[in-house]
Amino acid sequence: MKRLVLALDVYERERALEIARETSEYLWAIKVNWPLILGAGVGIIKELKETANLPLIADLKLADIPNTNRLVAGKVFEAGADYVIVHGFTGRDSVNAVKELGEVIIVVEMSHPGAGEFIQPAVDGLIKLANDVRPFGVIAPATRPERISYIRSKLRGEIKILTPGVGAQGGSAKKALEAGADYVIVGRSVYESRNPREKARELHEELMGAI
Amino acid sequence: MKRLVLALDVYERERALEIARETSEYLWAIKVNWPLILGAGVGIIKELKETANLPLIADLKLADIPNTNRLVAGKVFEAGADYVIVHGFTGRDSVNAVKELGEVIIVVEMSHPGAGEFIQPAVDGLIKLANDVRPFGVIAPATRPERISYIRSKLRGEIKILTPGVGAQGGSAKKALEAGADYVIVGRSVYESRNPREKARELHEELMGAI
Repeated sequence: MKRLVLALDVYERERALEIARETSEYLWAIKVNWPLILGAGVGIIKELKETANLPLIADLKLADIPNTNRLVAGKVFEAGADYVIVHGFTGRDSVNAVKELGEVIIVVEMSHPGAGEFIQPAVDGLIKLANDVRPFGVIAPATRPERISYIRSKLRGEIKILTPGVGAQGGSAKKALEAGADYVIVGRSVYESRNPREKARELHEELMGAI
Repeated sequence: MKRLVLALDVYERERALEIARETSEYLWAIKVNWPLILGAGVGIIKELKETANLPLIADLKLADIPNTNRLVAGKVFEAGADYVIVHGFTGRDSVNAVKELGEVIIVVEMSHPGAGEFIQPAVDGLIKLANDVRPFGVIAPATRPERISYIRSKLRGEIKILTPGVGAQGGSAKKALEAGADYVIVGRSVYESRNPREKARELHEELMGAI
């Protein structure tokens, strides 16, 4: 089973497609964020799907009223995205507006310093929201594996945990899986590597060996 | 002084430019959101600025880690936006990453039902964050004027309040200003009107009379 998600945070269409092609064999999915969509247009989603033939996660971090979330997600699902990442803190109606259109992944924890101000104190409420809404998965950072364990202990078993922060941000892929993560999201360590394919292979094997 | 902001939530480039041209005389600024940017490309920001010659607010509701917020906002400021709307909920480092690049407007309150779960209970903390960060303005909805009064009473005097929810969502422009709002954001009532120019003129005069 593949557990590696590539955060494809490069901003040129050709480079994005090239890295997707080189690494796809070792990935479960590809994640794109707004900078690539702004740089290359929303059509990049379809191109990446055709190139890599993998699930595509649109990391939009949607956080608007239900109607606006619906309009934005609608355009991105239409473009071919399989999963859309949405914030839980704007409430369950805003999340459900996206879930009516396709699979969602909910942010329940973040790890930058500012996340300590409002997001981290709300984590129990955000986990409860996820348990009620029943998304495909939640996002929780690998930089603090004990937080993944905590979230795993509170979260319905069938909801996946996807964890960014491995590699350049200091988190360990192996520890994240041991703590209960299902998928590990890696960006810079792969796309800034001199050999992205080789780096993806290494990480894939590390993840296979960890389980 | 003009106090009307048009929420230009139409999704076709030609229609957006047409309404901007027709109504610009009565507006302080134009606000665009992701659906128009996705539909018409980020270049629509420059075209709207050239057409209407008004301040342009990019309502991105950014809510990511500082580095990603910076990358997204950078592209949108580069495209010509004068203000970027960012969530306070993801913490002051995420807000400051945008403010280093240009003027920001911080969401401190929302009015959809789901806003009662996490956003509204955090309002005092979000106002404090705004007072510390000193943005151009904050977003607070017109559907509950008493909340605008409350926010105004806690917010540094020089920080503007921009208030959506007037018109189709039921809020009154006059009451919002009386409660302490500086700018009123109107969408559907104008762009779904048979005569957007006339409707914008009416609202402009109502706002002028209210002060």
